[in-house]
Amino acid sequence: MNQPNPVAAVTPHPKIGYSIFDIEIHARPASPRNIAAYLPSSYVDRYLDGFLGDSTPNLDQRGGNDREDADISDNCVAASNPELIARQLLDPYGIEWAICTGPIYNLSTIGDTDYAVALASAFNNWLNNDFVPRDTRYYGVIYVAMQDPKAAVKEIEKWAGHPRASQVFIGSAGIVPLGHRSNHIIYEAAAANGLPVATHSTMEGRGITGTPTGNGYCSRYIEYHTGLAASALTNVTSLVCEGVFAKIPDFRFVLLEFGISWAQPLMWALDREWKSLRSEMPLLKELPSEYLKRQLFYTTQPIEEPDKTRDLVQTYHAVNGSNQIMFSSDYPHWDFDNPVVILPGRDNAELKRRILRENALALYGRRLGLK
Amino acid sequence: MNQPNPVAAVTPHPKIGYSIFDIEIHARPASPRNIAAYLPSSYVDRYLDGFLGDSTPNLDQRGGNDREDADISDNCVAASNPELIARQLLDPYGIEWAICTGPIYNLSTIGDTDYAVALASAFNNWLNNDFVPRDTRYYGVIYVAMQDPKAAVKEIEKWAGHPRASQVFIGSAGIVPLGHRSNHIIYEAAAANGLPVATHSTMEGRGITGTPTGNGYCSRYIEYHTGLAASALTNVTSLVCEGVFAKIPDFRFVLLEFGISWAQPLMWALDREWKSLRSEMPLLKELPSEYLKRQLFYTTQPIEEPDKTRDLVQTYHAVNGSNQIMFSSDYPHWDFDNPVVILPGRDNAELKRRILRENALALYGRRLGLK
Repeated sequence: MNQPNPVAAVTPHPKIGYSIFDIEIHARPASPRNIAAYLPSSYVDRYLDGFLGDSTPNLDQRGGNDREDADISDNCVAASNPELIARQLLDPYGIEWAICTGPIYNLSTIGDTDYAVALASAFNNWLNNDFVPRDTRYYGVIYVAMQDPKAAVKEIEKWAGHPRASQVFIGSAGIVPLGHRSNHIIYEAAAANGLPVATHSTMEGRGITGTPTGNGYCSRYIEYHTGLAASALTNVTSLVCEGVFAKIPDFRFVLLEFGISWAQPLMWALDREWKSLRSEMPLLKELPSEYLKRQLFYTTQPIEEPDKTRDLVQTYHAVNGSNQIMFSSDYPHWDFDNPVVILPGRDNAELKRRILRENALALYGRRLGLK
Repeated sequence: MNQPNPVAAVTPHPKIGYSIFDIEIHARPASPRNIAAYLPSSYVDRYLDGFLGDSTPNLDQRGGNDREDADISDNCVAASNPELIARQLLDPYGIEWAICTGPIYNLSTIGDTDYAVALASAFNNWLNNDFVPRDTRYYGVIYVAMQDPKAAVKEIEKWAGHPRASQVFIGSAGIVPLGHRSNHIIYEAAAANGLPVATHSTMEGRGITGTPTGNGYCSRYIEYHTGLAASALTNVTSLVCEGVFAKIPDFRFVLLEFGISWAQPLMWALDREWKSLRSEMPLLKELPSEYLKRQLFYTTQPIEEPDKTRDLVQTYHAVNGSNQIMFSSDYPHWDFDNPVVILPGRDNAELKRRILRENALALYGRRLGLK
């Protein structure tokens, strides 16, 4: 069951012409018992009764997250069957490397810190030891709960030796912006072990977090999802202003499901404010945008779709997209990005290749032994 | 004392060549007694003791808001002397029309609704009846407290006949995003009376509002001020998604001190989400960006300053800036925008003229009898 499938040579998609790197598949356990098996016995009933604690969505998303054909297999949890994922996604699009980010982004929104820490550990065991080995194309992540930075460091050090653990994975929403001083030891531990830190949106406003915006609760899913750019803006600003990028030159930060185009105006604003208020940030030796152009990474899902592709390309160049943007399919979510259709046109071929393949290989390749 | 000064013909600044329209001067009462004079007696002591209630700034701004030469006159409150403002700002820059937005943006953050309503009324009396008449170049606003929409409508109707009241003025931070259904009667009343609605940033996170971001409290003023784009994004998204722009075609919304360049990516995101989630917003008949390009207005302070002016101009065009962006000096704040230096270059002359003068004349001119 847990032996890697022998993978045939990856066949590139004919309209792409090379194999690609997918930064995000939402792999899930087929049954909660797969997770419970790794929990301390005192938490097992609690988990089986309530799963992840207070993660009830407060905004309904037109009847669910997932594409409807992702759960037709031998069990009814979408993205829980590695072979079905391979058939629906890896094979047809010629994906050679795929990071499974798993199903939990809410660890940092759980009130009970010890429970959150135990869940992080259980999911790490399931993902990296049970799921990822099912296909040589899969790679895992290291979950940590931000409420207990020392436990997070311990979890990072425990998994850093795993050859297929690609990065540290944290939720974007908690009780403080991500740059908060208490979090720095987590980022230092990640950098020291050659691990980028990735954060995923959509737990804003749940559990012990505050309201999902600084202006209170919004009404509709479309409003909430559009507003996630505000969460990215807040967290990136916090990481810049608290000096995380400057203090930890090897810190690499990956934004999952936050869009990209808000980053150009943010860089303008930060650079402008820095000129006026530099005394507030003595650690920074360069313009804020210089750090971001090296250390901040973006993913394509959800990709913005202006009328003119060249506007998007201009924005991508402004954020140093030819190094910093990576493809994410977001499988099995319904708003999946098809790698074939992004960035059409011969002028964009090189940028597209970097996004679909080269940038992720550059970021993860050395650690994962791919180059 | 309260007679308009006879104003000499306005002399344009020689480097500009035409008189300009300033959307925002932070006029202030010289003494709290100027406001107390208009309060119900039961609130007078409370106001004189605590002024505006819980408005303590939670992030210090390098020793204060104001330029240091703005309070050297016969009293020590910056921007409280209409003649000094004229000498420091209107005369040297050839400003022919200037909207005084006054000193309070925190009405909607005050827990005691009745007190907030009384303060709105007192400030309206002081601003429109005492301050504005001191110079024919000044125009006032109509403050309302969002906690009591019916009282807000009454206040709007009371002042709508005042020939120098330019727009309704609200704070951007409260307990719900601005598009919330309970607020719609306020926007309807404004539109019915030909009054734009302007909102000012910087009360996020104070009083009865939640945390200043959806990710908690940030640490530094630079972080807070950069993050205000998130508040704009949240409120504009809320107004779009709750259908305010679509339901009220005459609704005009002015953002004060929120920057501009975040709006292009927001339009992309909203248009893209609308294509997927249109069923959530049955009121919208056009792309969200179409409403915003007609009904949403921006001000220049704080202006973004990318290395290349043409990047800024591209962004301005993307948000229909040749109609929607207006000049604001933000006097007497230290981060004042000098109208002479914005948008240099012959190529930008027409856009500059529209920003410095024509767009505001088009928005306010008919109501204020200027055209």
